[in-house]
Amino acid sequence: MNVPQSTPGSRLDNYVDRYAARTAGMTASEVRALFAVASRPEVVSLAGGMPNLHALPMDAVGDAVARLIQERGTVALQYGSGQGDETLRGQICDVMRLEGIEAHPDDVTVTVGSQQALDLVTRIFVDPGDVILAEAPSYVGALSTFASYQANVVHVEMDDDGLVPEHLENAIAAVKASGKRAKFLYTIPNFHNPMGVCLSAERRVRILEICRRADLLIVEDNPYGLLGFDGDPMRALRADDSDGVVYLGSFSKTFAPGLRVGWAVAPHAVREKLVLAAEASVLSPPVFSQMTVSTYLETQPWRAQIKNYREMYRERRDAMLDALKTYMPPGTTWTNPSGGFFVWVTLPEGLDAKAMLPRAVTARVAYVPGTAFYADGFGASSMRLSFCFPTPERIREGVRRLAGVIAQELELRAMFGGTPGGATPGAVLPPGSPTTQAPGPDLA
Amino acid sequence: MNVPQSTPGSRLDNYVDRYAARTAGMTASEVRALFAVASRPEVVSLAGGMPNLHALPMDAVGDAVARLIQERGTVALQYGSGQGDETLRGQICDVMRLEGIEAHPDDVTVTVGSQQALDLVTRIFVDPGDVILAEAPSYVGALSTFASYQANVVHVEMDDDGLVPEHLENAIAAVKASGKRAKFLYTIPNFHNPMGVCLSAERRVRILEICRRADLLIVEDNPYGLLGFDGDPMRALRADDSDGVVYLGSFSKTFAPGLRVGWAVAPHAVREKLVLAAEASVLSPPVFSQMTVSTYLETQPWRAQIKNYREMYRERRDAMLDALKTYMPPGTTWTNPSGGFFVWVTLPEGLDAKAMLPRAVTARVAYVPGTAFYADGFGASSMRLSFCFPTPERIREGVRRLAGVIAQELELRAMFGGTPGGATPGAVLPPGSPTTQAPGPDLA
Repeated sequence: MNVPQSTPGSRLDNYVDRYAARTAGMTASEVRALFAVASRPEVVSLAGGMPNLHALPMDAVGDAVARLIQERGTVALQYGSGQGDETLRGQICDVMRLEGIEAHPDDVTVTVGSQQALDLVTRIFVDPGDVILAEAPSYVGALSTFASYQANVVHVEMDDDGLVPEHLENAIAAVKASGKRAKFLYTIPNFHNPMGVCLSAERRVRILEICRRADLLIVEDNPYGLLGFDGDPMRALRADDSDGVVYLGSFSKTFAPGLRVGWAVAPHAVREKLVLAAEASVLSPPVFSQMTVSTYLETQPWRAQIKNYREMYRERRDAMLDALKTYMPPGTTWTNPSGGFFVWVTLPEGLDAKAMLPRAVTARVAYVPGTAFYADGFGASSMRLSFCFPTPERIREGVRRLAGVIAQELELRAMFGGTPGGATPGAVLPPGSPTTQAPGPDLA
Repeated sequence: MNVPQSTPGSRLDNYVDRYAARTAGMTASEVRALFAVASRPEVVSLAGGMPNLHALPMDAVGDAVARLIQERGTVALQYGSGQGDETLRGQICDVMRLEGIEAHPDDVTVTVGSQQALDLVTRIFVDPGDVILAEAPSYVGALSTFASYQANVVHVEMDDDGLVPEHLENAIAAVKASGKRAKFLYTIPNFHNPMGVCLSAERRVRILEICRRADLLIVEDNPYGLLGFDGDPMRALRADDSDGVVYLGSFSKTFAPGLRVGWAVAPHAVREKLVLAAEASVLSPPVFSQMTVSTYLETQPWRAQIKNYREMYRERRDAMLDALKTYMPPGTTWTNPSGGFFVWVTLPEGLDAKAMLPRAVTARVAYVPGTAFYADGFGASSMRLSFCFPTPERIREGVRRLAGVIAQELELRAMFGGTPGGATPGAVLPPGSPTTQAPGPDLA
């Protein structure tokens, strides 16, 4: 079809007939426009996954970065290696040791946030139509990446102890029966995004066994592993299998996301391909960001800072769980995260979180509807609430507002039966709203 | 074939049977190992395209960045928009105005260096097997990106005035005759990498006309446009066609590459797709880098700094041209760049620049063989020499050494006839050389 189509609020698209096939899989979230509104100060956003950076020692970091530029500027501002700064790669190995991982700096590829690591892993492994196994639900940013490579995502059920081994076995068998073979299992074992749950120690052993038996590569995405509220960090899957796991890490939650410094640890041959893909994609990750992280790790008490973060997030988690208990109407359930950023809330039967969102934003509270975390349209009865960014007071107020909206929906349902339709997003959107200005709901 | 293959100096690749088809196109440069050696201090490297950062006011930049973190750290270190920082996008429009471009900040997408812009443009337009037209020779980093998307690059001849319009017309016709349609023309109009030449003003008009008539999108890559040694910057192609050109810009050469801040300017609908592709790839470009550039542009005399760069590079260009004239054996020819970083040298008939490289490195001088800049194996008789990084003294010494190697090759040829084979790279490589540590020859 060569008929030009218009895009909202824009000129005709003269190029509509010549995009790559993969571009059809790159679509703006339907709720994106709403989130531009949700970023207004009067709205309590329980939607974004932005870490709270107020706890960072900005004076000390600023001084350290000034010295970095003044003393080593010609290196810090220059091109670097595609694999990343060697000193930083060594420090990353120290960080990973906290989760039982023994790796060599040469196993590490530094990336532009762990999102780029995800992109590169998908790029080197996935042809159009290839199967990727992922938890149900799964990280929205990973699903976007997988869609942009035309992957076929097969979801595997979770419960409060994380990915269910029996369901994984069934999924592997079903994919095999269909004549295919999954390229990898994508999993977030710690403080899952969006569910907030943790893969139990006993299940880690079983998942590794199942994948080893099926010769299935595991992509272990672990941005929140050091942000547990109780006890020591869990042992990473990669700690017990260096050949069968590609591990993705990030400084976005333990330091700061604006630097975009993440990494992948991979078996040697895979690591070589990751570096080639990274070079074709960005030449090298920003040396300036990398050396800033390296300087931070070297000069600042980063372990104490992670403890500060943990305590701050624990207080916010407590505020959210307490408010949910206080305000939510009967029939609403939620997970009980022991770390990370997120609570997964499931609505009373018959309610639709996506349809309800415009009403919630009108009531000045925002969340991410569960459908965003499924490649297959499921998840409408659930939503992700983030406790990472707002203050405890605003979290309580946000949950109170949300509970009011749910109660109203329940009343409407009792009165009229069936699921009430949501107000159209247009109703709350001023004309010309900046739909791409606000960070997307998919951040973190 | 499921037989595992070993990679040099590594374990077996257990994953050899499950990479994506595109991964076959991601190969390490054959000369990569040599460049690890070429980065030793005793070797004069005329290979890399690294800008010389010694002229930057590091004290002032360091202070400005410290203030940025101390005063706006919670923004500068946070996630940002996929399209990039709005203030910076406005400043980018000011920079582009120097080349006659009138753009709106909303037309701009900030990227992780202009390499990522290239990657994203290719990602949204190119299916495997699609044709891209590119100059002969062309930027090695672009060719890597195109290969990683399985594009079919068709080269179009250049001369001292840049891309030759007649050859472009012929190439378009030939692609059409083959039943295909080129997705875009990739061109570097100013101070071409690797040829150093400029597209003449008269040809700009003709190239635009030809592409408009053929409905062929132009991707105009312009990292060096402000680094001309004579007179005002040339008028960008994008200045005269806002719908038919995607323009790629970069701060790597006018400020510093270690920040990885580049950008694309594209028609509205294309821009929307670029942002979606960017989000799937890295969520958002580093806010820290972007605000550092923005602060630099706001607080530092960036126009004067570009003038400093120009004067420094002009002196080095003069040193290189002078040394070429002084030392090169008859039959050697070269381009006469009026800006940028590169001179393109063509050897006397019968000599092979790739075969000669190991001998040159042994003689303590390095360059990039011309074959790196062709997708189709041509270019063996030429080489790229960079004058951007070494001092004028080292440039002269490097050219003197290179001339000696060429003279020797000519003698051998006169004595034995035919092209002498090069020494094997292994002869100069110590075992276990860090083949991925040094920046690749493809940088810049």
